[in-house]
Amino acid sequence: MSQPANPDFENMVRNSFARQGAMSLIKAELTSVTHGTAEITVPHWEGLEQQHGYIHGGVVGMVADSAAGYAAMSIIPRNANVLSVEYKLNFAAPAQGEQLVARGRVLRPGRTLIVSAADVYSIEDGREVLCAIMQQTIIVLYDKK
Amino acid sequence: MSQPANPDFENMVRNSFARQGAMSLIKAELTSVTHGTAEITVPHWEGLEQQHGYIHGGVVGMVADSAAGYAAMSIIPRNANVLSVEYKLNFAAPAQGEQLVARGRVLRPGRTLIVSAADVYSIEDGREVLCAIMQQTIIVLYDKK
Amino acid sequence: MSQPANPDFENMVRNSFARQGAMSLIKAELTSVTHGTAEITVPHWEGLEQQHGYIHGGVVGMVADSAAGYAAMSIIPRNANVLSVEYKLNFAAPAQGEQLVARGRVLRPGRTLIVSAADVYSIEDGREVLCAIMQQTIIVLYDKK
Amino acid sequence: MSQPANPDFENMVRNSFARQGAMSLIKAELTSVTHGTAEITVPHWEGLEQQHGYIHGGVVGMVADSAAGYAAMSIIPRNANVLSVEYKLNFAAPAQGEQLVARGRVLRPGRTLIVSAADVYSIEDGREVLCAIMQQTIIVLYDKK
Repeated sequence: MSQPANPDFENMVRNSFARQGAMSLIKAELTSVTHGTAEITVPHWEGLEQQHGYIHGGVVGMVADSAAGYAAMSIIPRNANVLSVEYKLNFAAPAQGEQLVARGRVLRPGRTLIVSAADVYSIEDGREVLCAIMQQTIIVLYDKK
Repeated sequence: MSQPANPDFENMVRNSFARQGAMSLIKAELTSVTHGTAEITVPHWEGLEQQHGYIHGGVVGMVADSAAGYAAMSIIPRNANVLSVEYKLNFAAPAQGEQLVARGRVLRPGRTLIVSAADVYSIEDGREVLCAIMQQTIIVLYDKK
Repeated sequence: MSQPANPDFENMVRNSFARQGAMSLIKAELTSVTHGTAEITVPHWEGLEQQHGYIHGGVVGMVADSAAGYAAMSIIPRNANVLSVEYKLNFAAPAQGEQLVARGRVLRPGRTLIVSAADVYSIEDGREVLCAIMQQTIIVLYDKK
Repeated sequence: MSQPANPDFENMVRNSFARQGAMSLIKAELTSVTHGTAEITVPHWEGLEQQHGYIHGGVVGMVADSAAGYAAMSIIPRNANVLSVEYKLNFAAPAQGEQLVARGRVLRPGRTLIVSAADVYSIEDGREVLCAIMQQTIIVLYDKK
């Protein structure tokens, strides 16, 4: 992953994120994008909770899936797109605290299939607590030109 | 799974669901609960979309996770609770159409570990299209008495 | 999956299986192939055991992976091939008894990506006990002609 | 994971490995154990191959599962044992070359549930090539005394 295939990768990722109603619904922000990584941050607010006052596991999965998917998008050429094929998520701790940070990264940068991962942390009194670990498969779709 | 361990399982499941802010945020409804199964339905509305106008994969995962988890909750004793340990989700088709239906069921009803599954369908012009397939591990927590 | 893409699918599957040294090493047999399914049977013998005398979980994974993969191979055209992208396996019970039977089937017959599954049973005094549940992603590779 | 719960963890892991017929069948060796990690090495020989002359994916899964499981075993108390609940494995490249090395490590050292991971490399002309990535859930079983 020495050189970005698309020098404008950050704009591609930020534009895609901005068009996702679901990310805006949960008040998620794209807090960092580099070549091969992406970070999404979500404040803990009432609308995201499950019955015990933690952030819902589904929301945890949603930001993990997105962070790992955008990490993959950051390494593809301009004429390509990414699609999440599948992912597997382990919950490590309930998502308490002030906010949630999902950090995605590329593990295996294939031409057709990318394997990516994400760690999700809750921020509790400024301290990071690991709350979920994800491994994901992404397929790269190329324009038929 | 011949006999429910908790005869009042439907109320336990419905009460838990009602207390989830995140389910209400996405306008999800618990449309069916039987011993060993649960069904969640979500209308397709703008707030749930990703950048191409489909329902966001994270929302698909969220309802799959919940449907399979509530299927597991339907078979446990009254003094127990369920926790999602992990899940794996394959996307099969983009979630288009009018609504999303996630159907969870128990595959392996263990005392400590339950394996459950969920299929998610989108309803397009009244026709069901398979859009995701999930396999999940649930741990059963018993009251320390 | 109404019509096999390759009318000769059973021979394609059986020939591939016969060329796998690893299947012969563990004494596995391909006991059934239909359009969209495959079944592999392994006798319980000492060489396959882990430290408690059960069949090793890795062997369970091996036959599950193969059964689901051959189920996928049974639905592809003659000029194509399958590659296992990833799988997820839940263990449900230790593999005791006389033999192991893995039954693979196609869940989602895509052109490029196939989602398949396998259930693995141990046969104990003639009774089937579910010992593992697998969900798998397969990519179909077409000849470049 | 600052202090081993069992100071004698290396012997516990090595004794368990030595009693696995399946590891000896494939000629696997336990090449390293530290607190929180384990490494298994397998030579590439004909008996492990699939139809194209690569090491069979099932064997790759088998050593990944074992390396991650033994990494987990290295952090538990003496009166406990580990059981693999489930795992998810992505294939990254065909297993060519002279040998296979699986490196397991603990990601989340819980009291009841441990999340571990393994990377599997093939050694090709002395160079390491990533061929599989695994994420696993382990349950810790304590003696009832």
